[in-house]
Formats: sequence, structure tokens, C-alpha cells
Amino acid sequence: MSGHLAVVGLGPGDARYVTPEAEAALAAAQALYGYGPYLDRVPVRPRQSRHASDNREEATRAAAALRVAAAGARVAIVSGGDPGVFAMASAVCEEIEAGPDSWRTLEVAIVPGVTAMLAVAARIGAPLGQDFCALSLSDNLKPWDVIERRLDAAAGAGFVLALYNPISRARPWQLGAAIERLRRHLPATTPVVFGRAVGRPDEHVSVTTLAEADAADADMATLIIVGSRATRVVQRNGQAPLVYTPRAVAEVSA
Amino acid sequence: MSGHLAVVGLGPGDARYVTPEAEAALAAAQALYGYGPYLDRVPVRPRQSRHASDNREEATRAAAALRVAAAGARVAIVSGGDPGVFAMASAVCEEIEAGPDSWRTLEVAIVPGVTAMLAVAARIGAPLGQDFCALSLSDNLKPWDVIERRLDAAAGAGFVLALYNPISRARPWQLGAAIERLRRHLPATTPVVFGRAVGRPDEHVSVTTLAEADAADADMATLIIVGSRATRVVQRNGQAPLVYTPRAVAEVSA
Repeated sequence: MSGHLAVVGLGPGDARYVTPEAEAALAAAQALYGYGPYLDRVPVRPRQSRHASDNREEATRAAAALRVAAAGARVAIVSGGDPGVFAMASAVCEEIEAGPDSWRTLEVAIVPGVTAMLAVAARIGAPLGQDFCALSLSDNLKPWDVIERRLDAAAGAGFVLALYNPISRARPWQLGAAIERLRRHLPATTPVVFGRAVGRPDEHVSVTTLAEADAADADMATLIIVGSRATRVVQRNGQAPLVYTPRAVAEVSA
Repeated sequence: MSGHLAVVGLGPGDARYVTPEAEAALAAAQALYGYGPYLDRVPVRPRQSRHASDNREEATRAAAALRVAAAGARVAIVSGGDPGVFAMASAVCEEIEAGPDSWRTLEVAIVPGVTAMLAVAARIGAPLGQDFCALSLSDNLKPWDVIERRLDAAAGAGFVLALYNPISRARPWQLGAAIERLRRHLPATTPVVFGRAVGRPDEHVSVTTLAEADAADADMATLIIVGSRATRVVQRNGQAPLVYTPRAVAEVSA
């Protein structure tokens, strides 16, 4: 019997974002692994074991799932959003590279999903309508000066920025520092979107400016989009404003 | 009767990527608008009109759909991948901003989808496992020197790059020029992924290096991922290699 490991993206948090491919991979699994709150989104099925673990245990979780798959089981690791964007797919690849030879013969399927920045952007218009960067503000695995250099490079070259992992109890100052840093490059009026828990009952999306943006309005479930110089806000009658970045770039941005 | 416009992402090209939310939006529409090949992916339903248009007619298509929605109909515009990533959502926002006041009272729903870079990344491992940029190589709406500056900034700061719209009959040299440009910043051994038509019967995904990458291997349906200095290739026994970017950034990248 040959094992199989699927790394499955659940999308931003509601069943209406789960693709048929993800649904099929979850249904076929004998064992499910994942961070508890993500696992809680998956309907309980008979004859399927569930193994919840903590947020910061990606490597241990990946290794445990690989071990069970290598023993012949059909295993799925669940991820919020897309597993390839600041999530489990990279941790699984790391473990395969570092692990025993038997892990390299395993069939591994990564099942993509709607990542948070796409869901937040969709809620508010089309802020990612031109070139953009996705950047994690977590300095757990990356020196802070690398993050600063990437903020400088991206904002300076006119990319829109999607900021993942903006803040946590253990990382309280990073988002404020990033906003401060971006103010060196972008006008005070640059639109900023805070998208919290999109697709979940407690969803909250708000639009502000770079001058007014306040790190205290974000938590672990927030994804932040910082516009470029080209990003616009369209006020509407009786509808929420639209934030979008036009397709055309008229001139060299500063 | 008040109209409604949905801008719906179909994902990379197979029904297994269409989210339940997208499916529901398509089923509820009285009129469908879109680029012909995308519209062809949507099952024909009775009492639903279909309006195919050409690739380059985004603004005209958006305006036509808005006009019909403003007259009271339930309208859907279909997009490949995600509508907010180099697709129709931005064109719709532009038309709303430029159009009559009545378009600003319309209910507009953007329905996100799995964009090409996520699908290509999933097929090959986790190349987008660290900070990354999405950049369109089309200079139809953007001066080429802006594209060059963005390539320089992103590669120089250690972002992985996802290149959309790499090549077309009208834009034959841009991808070659971009690869040449990236060679100034990145080692010859940097992994490069060509992902063509992922999720469709003629899917083809290949891995090469920046030194060997050949623009002639891409066409309009290709999405290219250029790794950072940190991106790795794991050879496997009896399985395709895995390309991934580790979560940890050990030091300041050049």
C-alpha cells in the first residue's frame, strides 16, 4: 500500500470558498492534521482520525503527517487560505528534504485555495489590480531588517502591498513600524484596507489612509492591503466605497 | 427592480477549482459576459443570455455589463483565475468611476478565485513559500521601464516573482528581456518554473534554471515563477522534483 499526502487549502474561512478539489481531498483522507481552528472547519466524517496541533508547530505537524503517510495511509494536512502562501506547503517540503528517503517516494498533492489577500481585495473592489507583493510581517523566521528592505523596495517601485501576519501577542510593534516605514515612500492619502476574518461571521473590512492607519485596528486575523500611488477610492451612493488600482500605469511612479 | 453585478473568478480552468460561491453567482445570473474561452467553461443554463467578447475588450465588456445591470438585471462577468489579479475587477471599477451616477448605486460583488500563480505553485511544491511579487509583463498599459524597475526592485530585495502575461503575438520580446534583466540580480542556478494551462488537459509544468530559461518555452497560457536566492529544488525518487522557498530567511539576501 502506498501512502499519499495532500496539503489542502480551505480558503478564507467559509464553506463557500472550499473548492471541489479540496472537498474531495478532505473526503478521501483517513487522517487529518492541522492547526485546531482550521481543522474545526472541516466536517467530521466517520473512519477519519483528526490531529489538531498548535499554530507554531508547523514542522512537527508536517513530520507527523509524513510519517503516517509513509506508513501507507491517505493523509491530509489542512491550511487556511492557500497552503503555499505563508502556510503549510513550504513546511512539508522542508521536512521532505530533511527527512528519510522514504518520504521522497511519497505522492504529495498540494491543493490550492483562495488566499486571504484575494478575499479581502474582492470585498473592497480591486486594490490588487496592478503589480503587487505579498509580504509577511512576522520576524519569527526572518530578520526585521529584511522586512524593512522589502517594504522599501516594493513601495518604492510602485507595487501594491498585501501584509500577512501583521501582529500577534508576541509581535506587538511590527505593524506600527511597517506603517511608519511606508510613510517614507507613499503619500499620506494612500488608501489602506484592513480586512479582518473575511468570509467569517465576524468579518470586518475598513478603508483608511496611510496617514490615519493605526496598527491597533489589526489583530492576528487581519490582512492589510496598502495601495500604491495609483490606487483610488470611489465613493458610492448607498454602497461601500470601492478601492481599486487601475490597470494602466500612466507614468513612472516615484 | 434593482440590478446586481457579480465579477466571478473561475480559477485556473477546471471545474474542480470553481468555488461554491462562484457556482452560485453563475447560476443566479440572467446574463453572462466574458472573454469567449472563459465563457465556454461555464455550463449553459436555460433563460440565461451569453455575451462573449475578445480578450482586449475589458472596458467595453465592463460597460456593457454595467448598463444591463443598471437596467435591473442580475449580471455576471466571468474571469479566469481571480478577477482581482490582472483581470476584470479593476476594469469594472474604472468604468463605475467614469460612468453615470446610477452605476454607483449598483450592488457589485467580486467573487474571488484561485489565481494562476497559486495553481502553478501548488503543482510544483511551494515556490511562493516566502515573500513574493506578482508582476504583469504586458506593456500594453504600462511603460516597459516601469516593468524593469519593478523587476530590479523585487529580485534585488529577495522576493520570489510570479510573472503574468509573459508573452503574446503582439509582445514577443518582453519575457526574454525580463529574464535577461533578472540575470543581473540572481544566480544562474535560481530555479524557474514554467506552468502552462494548469488544471486543463494540456497542462505542462517544467522546472529549469535562470541560466537555461528560454522565453520560447512560454505562450499566452503560461505563468512563470522565478525563485529567490533561497528557493530550492528537491529531487525525488519516482516523483517530480519539488521546488520550494523555505519559511526561514537566514540572513540578509543580496
